[in-house]
Amino acid sequence: MGRRPRLDVNLILFTAAETAAPLPRTDPRAVHLTDVLRRKVGDTFDAGLINGPRGKGTVSAIGADTLTLTFAWGAPPPPPDAITLIVGLPRPQTARDVLRETTALGLAALHFVTSEKGESSYAQSTLWTSGEWQRHLVNGAQQAFVTQLPQVTFGRSLATVLAELTPGSTRLALDNYESPAPLSQVAAPRGTPVVLALGSERGWSAGERAQLRAAQFQLVHLGANVLRTETACIAALTLIKAQLGSL
Amino acid sequence: MGRRPRLDVNLILFTAAETAAPLPRTDPRAVHLTDVLRRKVGDTFDAGLINGPRGKGTVSAIGADTLTLTFAWGAPPPPPDAITLIVGLPRPQTARDVLRETTALGLAALHFVTSEKGESSYAQSTLWTSGEWQRHLVNGAQQAFVTQLPQVTFGRSLATVLAELTPGSTRLALDNYESPAPLSQVAAPRGTPVVLALGSERGWSAGERAQLRAAQFQLVHLGANVLRTETACIAALTLIKAQLGSL
Repeated sequence: MGRRPRLDVNLILFTAAETAAPLPRTDPRAVHLTDVLRRKVGDTFDAGLINGPRGKGTVSAIGADTLTLTFAWGAPPPPPDAITLIVGLPRPQTARDVLRETTALGLAALHFVTSEKGESSYAQSTLWTSGEWQRHLVNGAQQAFVTQLPQVTFGRSLATVLAELTPGSTRLALDNYESPAPLSQVAAPRGTPVVLALGSERGWSAGERAQLRAAQFQLVHLGANVLRTETACIAALTLIKAQLGSL
Repeated sequence: MGRRPRLDVNLILFTAAETAAPLPRTDPRAVHLTDVLRRKVGDTFDAGLINGPRGKGTVSAIGADTLTLTFAWGAPPPPPDAITLIVGLPRPQTARDVLRETTALGLAALHFVTSEKGESSYAQSTLWTSGEWQRHLVNGAQQAFVTQLPQVTFGRSLATVLAELTPGSTRLALDNYESPAPLSQVAAPRGTPVVLALGSERGWSAGERAQLRAAQFQLVHLGANVLRTETACIAALTLIKAQLGSL
């Protein structure tokens, strides 16, 4: 972990199973509640069920080893924007930023694919093998005050992911070399799912461009400036969400 | 420096003065040329003059202590987008990301202001006092393959910065609380300078909102999700650049 840990928790997230049992005092959320938020018995806090409603948690009891929490949930959230992001597997530190910040912006699915010009060995990083990647989704949602996490896959081929895409979706691939159209000028009709594909740092191979075109992807660009993968993901997702009317 | 150093240098930048003298072998650019790019005598590389043209550099001689470089410059670049970003002074690690990534996207000026709900002590960080901040601008430009750095000020008050703004500019302030309009739906007419103001992490005070409104700022938002300052800067700058037709 290169980056200085910085946890901006505006909402504390739980799975349904976790809300049914006392929370160990060693759980980072328990530490956050007692040591950062300084909650005492009877105090409330903003809570959310992962992929479910937001609501209020109450600290009902503080034991030596556990916190007992009770919850009152609100209405279920609307579904996330029907946006799927396909990204050539980036170096792990970049993947952490992409996982966290795209979850904060909100999207339905995130596929990190192996690509010809990328480093497929990145899929063996502990980020992926240890399950650490899930924590970055939760951190992004907790920062953004939302409960919804994208579906994530990693280490599969571009062809495999393309084969499963929803028919009829708007399909856009960022490409710095062969794309005549700026992403900002491309129409993404509201109500239609959008799939956006970004290559690895070295971009798409000729074969991958052919695969994308065969799968009805339009090649688009984000201007002449060469952006980091994480910045390109944020910029592209922002433009698509603006087009869909959700930003 | 929390973040693992990661230098993506697509263009090596120099000041005019630096191009007139041999480059010490200890300079990071010399190390990059000889050790990363493996350039030998006679080899060329992509070079740029800060705030000037891009062109080709040639390694003319490799001495024990210095590299002798010669340059052939192209046409001067167009001016940067007339966008001024005002940001409530963030924690130093966030400021590094904002300096680097907004420079990569391209803008004219960047003012980090003290604000009522912000930590004015952040202005005493070595990021600012040591001049380190300039390095992040150069890194952003070198990544983006551009030469232009924004003008930067830091530690001044919002009122001081507002008083110097160009008359007739489009003025937008991000606000999560009192903004009825999404930034993505606000018109930024092409050819008119844009000023975008973002508060500190805790947002604007009532007094600052009044100052902004008195200075003809329209309050706008980026949707319901709470974004990190660096992500909000990238998203907002992306939307404005798209409106101006430069992305």
